[in-house]
Amino acid sequence: MTTKTLTYLGPEGTFTHQAALTAADRLAPVLGERPRVVPADDVPAIMRAVESGASWGVIAWENNVEGYVVPNLDALIDASDAAGFARVGVDVAFDAFVRLPAGDAGRPDPADYAGAKVSAHPHGLAQCRRFVDGHRLRPEPAASNAAACRDLRPGDVALGPSLCGPLYGLTTLAAGVQDFDGARTEFLVLVPRAEATRLLAAARDGGEAEYETIVTFIPLSTGPGVLADLFDVLRDAGLNMTSFISRPIKGHDGTYSFIATIDTAPWQPRFRRVLGEVAEHGDWVKVLAAYPRRERPNPPVDAWMLPEGGVHLVAGGLGQDWRTDARVRKELLW
Amino acid sequence: MTTKTLTYLGPEGTFTHQAALTAADRLAPVLGERPRVVPADDVPAIMRAVESGASWGVIAWENNVEGYVVPNLDALIDASDAAGFARVGVDVAFDAFVRLPAGDAGRPDPADYAGAKVSAHPHGLAQCRRFVDGHRLRPEPAASNAAACRDLRPGDVALGPSLCGPLYGLTTLAAGVQDFDGARTEFLVLVPRAEATRLLAAARDGGEAEYETIVTFIPLSTGPGVLADLFDVLRDAGLNMTSFISRPIKGHDGTYSFIATIDTAPWQPRFRRVLGEVAEHGDWVKVLAAYPRRERPNPPVDAWMLPEGGVHLVAGGLGQDWRTDARVRKELLW
Repeated sequence: MTTKTLTYLGPEGTFTHQAALTAADRLAPVLGERPRVVPADDVPAIMRAVESGASWGVIAWENNVEGYVVPNLDALIDASDAAGFARVGVDVAFDAFVRLPAGDAGRPDPADYAGAKVSAHPHGLAQCRRFVDGHRLRPEPAASNAAACRDLRPGDVALGPSLCGPLYGLTTLAAGVQDFDGARTEFLVLVPRAEATRLLAAARDGGEAEYETIVTFIPLSTGPGVLADLFDVLRDAGLNMTSFISRPIKGHDGTYSFIATIDTAPWQPRFRRVLGEVAEHGDWVKVLAAYPRRERPNPPVDAWMLPEGGVHLVAGGLGQDWRTDARVRKELLW
Repeated sequence: MTTKTLTYLGPEGTFTHQAALTAADRLAPVLGERPRVVPADDVPAIMRAVESGASWGVIAWENNVEGYVVPNLDALIDASDAAGFARVGVDVAFDAFVRLPAGDAGRPDPADYAGAKVSAHPHGLAQCRRFVDGHRLRPEPAASNAAACRDLRPGDVALGPSLCGPLYGLTTLAAGVQDFDGARTEFLVLVPRAEATRLLAAARDGGEAEYETIVTFIPLSTGPGVLADLFDVLRDAGLNMTSFISRPIKGHDGTYSFIATIDTAPWQPRFRRVLGEVAEHGDWVKVLAAYPRRERPNPPVDAWMLPEGGVHLVAGGLGQDWRTDARVRKELLW
């Protein structure tokens, strides 16, 4: 068997590269060897590599700040032969790098770089604004954070994922310089569908018990109640949905597909029954991914978590006349 | 009365600027004068301007390729005093510009710029790749398309929205150079909530009859069935939902808010009853926007619109044994 490859969105040194390396580490025991990671020019090239069986793929799926990576979601819905069987997360954290002369093993000081040029993708520059402004660096946009790091010249600063340091022979000026801690991107590892079935069966045999499934539905009718009917079926089966969005079907205004993440495996009897019921109803259905579930808290919502404003009636609060209360009317635009 | 202003995400020459100008044209008859459009540094600055009553605001809401602009959606959910009362759409179309010497009224030819530098935001460069590659232009990233146009030097090319031409004294080398026609971004015009109520009442008095509402719910319990119960209430009221997504509540893993777009006005009796029922159930609810509805097709989904693969049972197709069919099992990961 030739060495398996994992294709990711290049250039080298992107967060997707980091995700591919994490996935390679995690898959090594499954495959008996560590897959080689290979950059691609764009996501369609990754999908082609997966569908042709030439390589496995890694695509960004969801970010906790920006939401779904919708073009990738659309690509997976439209793929003829690809499914996700593993999910990996990467923290969106930036290091500031400099390039020291060969042989210089000194520890550079951010203070020495005041007024220097700092390069990154415009999003990267925006995500590290406090560091950039705090050291009076002069922002200069680059095509990608990885390109900024690769092309870094002595005396300048570049921002990028930590793997850019070893990758491009750079020295870390400061680590974790992002304004916002806690941003995280989730990636899916894609394989041809028959291989997904085989790998998931092997994981089951290996004792993996908890799964999550991403499924797409297209109701063959539209109008009021279509979603309610769908959700009734899920509720009546006792299935928990952790994420849900609607997407217009490309080029067909007013038609929608629905993408749901369900807290169980597609072969679990109750979910299997639901998928069968939906298919027998004549709706279109496709499982996009199934993967071992990570721990997921499911806490009750407390009042202190609620956003500003809005209406939240509490017992004994506004009484019978709450509908005419000025604040309620303002929050509901009545 | 001082002239009303509309604050948008700068710099001048962005698609948001174009949306603000479109909104200003459309609002002029309502206000009796054309509002002045003013750039802001970031979306939090726009939200502050709206909430303080200093200005109205324009924020990007949804793009038909990229999906929701999730950070803006989160900002509106969290806003203490802002609501949308109008919606405007802008086609994401790029022109290629050059800067001719003063007095030169010639018509430049793309062939004369072969090998020249072309500047735009990395996304803009990616969206016009065919034009860039076709004329063998050398891509150079800029912080924004507007900045690329503003800083354009004679002999180079910049890509940006058409309004950058008159704005920065540029000549159009080629119009509509985007690879993909049909990308469109929708924007919301934001005002303080009391003003939204007043403006919507005026629109009603003016004969505007059809509305759309964007509403956020947070169920105060989580787990199976929460959404099904919510959707049952909408279905039983005969209300049509045209878009729906779930969003994690910031900093509280496993808790969600739900954002739905409903095909009616918040004061319409059936929807009013639904909002009341949800509030009385103890859930948190807030209307984010209500605006006159544009025409929206609601066609049935036909088989030829369906994505690749997936399961779609047709009468007389696979028979009773469809559950064991190899293709079905592959599409459902059974």
